[in-house]
Amino acid sequence: MDDSGPLHLLEIAISFGDCDPAGIVYYPNYFRWFDRCFHSYVAAHHGGHDALRRALHSRGLGLVSASGRFRTPGLEGELLRVEMRAVSWSKRTMTLGYIARVGERVVIEGEEVRAIFVEDGAGGIKAGSMEPFREMVDG
Amino acid sequence: MDDSGPLHLLEIAISFGDCDPAGIVYYPNYFRWFDRCFHSYVAAHHGGHDALRRALHSRGLGLVSASGRFRTPGLEGELLRVEMRAVSWSKRTMTLGYIARVGERVVIEGEEVRAIFVEDGAGGIKAGSMEPFREMVDG
Amino acid sequence: MDDSGPLHLLEIAISFGDCDPAGIVYYPNYFRWFDRCFHSYVAAHHGGHDALRRALHSRGLGLVSASGRFRTPGLEGELLRVEMRAVSWSKRTMTLGYIARVGERVVIEGEEVRAIFVEDGAGGIKAGSMEPFREMVDG
Amino acid sequence: MDDSGPLHLLEIAISFGDCDPAGIVYYPNYFRWFDRCFHSYVAAHHGGHDALRRALHSRGLGLVSASGRFRTPGLEGELLRVEMRAVSWSKRTMTLGYIARVGERVVIEGEEVRAIFVEDGAGGIKAGSMEPFREMVDG
Repeated sequence: MDDSGPLHLLEIAISFGDCDPAGIVYYPNYFRWFDRCFHSYVAAHHGGHDALRRALHSRGLGLVSASGRFRTPGLEGELLRVEMRAVSWSKRTMTLGYIARVGERVVIEGEEVRAIFVEDGAGGIKAGSMEPFREMVDG
Repeated sequence: MDDSGPLHLLEIAISFGDCDPAGIVYYPNYFRWFDRCFHSYVAAHHGGHDALRRALHSRGLGLVSASGRFRTPGLEGELLRVEMRAVSWSKRTMTLGYIARVGERVVIEGEEVRAIFVEDGAGGIKAGSMEPFREMVDG
Repeated sequence: MDDSGPLHLLEIAISFGDCDPAGIVYYPNYFRWFDRCFHSYVAAHHGGHDALRRALHSRGLGLVSASGRFRTPGLEGELLRVEMRAVSWSKRTMTLGYIARVGERVVIEGEEVRAIFVEDGAGGIKAGSMEPFREMVDG
Repeated sequence: MDDSGPLHLLEIAISFGDCDPAGIVYYPNYFRWFDRCFHSYVAAHHGGHDALRRALHSRGLGLVSASGRFRTPGLEGELLRVEMRAVSWSKRTMTLGYIARVGERVVIEGEEVRAIFVEDGAGGIKAGSMEPFREMVDG
């Protein structure tokens, strides 16, 4: 993997129903599109979330945290191009970086920190080792 | 059960993010609120969807069809009062009727037709008998 | 216009976040996709909703009613192909018919009835003549 | 205002349709609830977003950034209690802090940074002075 390159690209056509009474994208939708981009990557490279979940003996790759910085408003009819990068790895988490642009204009930059959630043996879940997934991504 | 009375009532405070660039409720949200009303009823009277699903040896009470007639626009800041009735039953379906008002003003009327989905023994699902749930509701 | 042909086609990649705890598409999302398909058509053929709204001296092409019949569940990772047709016109409404399939399998069939909402001169809105838009579509 | 106290509280009944195939709240919904809490506060104390927007001669109180840390999963049927605080002010932004709990259990902590967007005189928008709103809140 070229470390400077995006893991995945996803285009979103911003629709009327994605926008709020101010006429711009309702901001929680950007997080839906980050998540959609991640799952689109998983579908393209790892057989989908369900197959990946089973390959990792886990409940899934869930969220530890998420953030976004809204640079310019996204407008109805615009084509938003979302880029996703694996910006860092820790023992139990990965950090995905997102930049979404309309043409050259940056609309939003953000991050998701994800963990591989496994059963903790006491009815709950905990973050398992990220190593197996890192190997699948970097392999 | 008084046949003319609602099975359940749910109040929704219409928020900025529920509305579209025309400044009125984005219409798919009304279906989210119909579904929310149904699940609020199930939580209040039948221990929640998961408990009900198990009591009925089923995958859940899913949708066969849904419809809505938008009488007047719902606006940000309004309090929408959703009423749900069991309007009819067939062997394998129930029809829920919804009326949602702001004060006396009708905003939307609609229906959901739901079935109890069970495994069909061939890897798919089919609509099972509605009788057990009808007894729970009418009991 | 070939009356038997679709006005518009839209592909939706069903994502994890479109699905509910039963693992299938959460049904209000189908209405979001009907609406997205309509607006995608308007963007492709009429310059977007805002331009169309102004060309028609109106507040927009809003909903009178909507309905859907859920034939088979839509699943995460599937590619849903939505077809939209203009199935009928009345003096003040148009009826759009939708069929969405995964491969040959029908997932949902539905309708939207839309009107051109104009100011009624008393602070409210009313359905104006559909004729100007019909000419734009059939032209 | 007691600086240590919340500006606003909002209860959300977590519903089936708020959850994803993993059976937990789909994370972008937490941001919808942060935003809903903010607008509920504005409705309760400042006459709603539209009135506030006009009082501030602005386009609205939009987002500069948002973030969330997901401590424990929120589950269908749980009652989520969202607390909102004004944690800091700058010349052109305010930072709102959110903590959402089910009972004593923290589900999510997060922030929204908001600005008062005004016309920039060149067809765009810019962040105006936060002072007038700060006076309304602290007054």
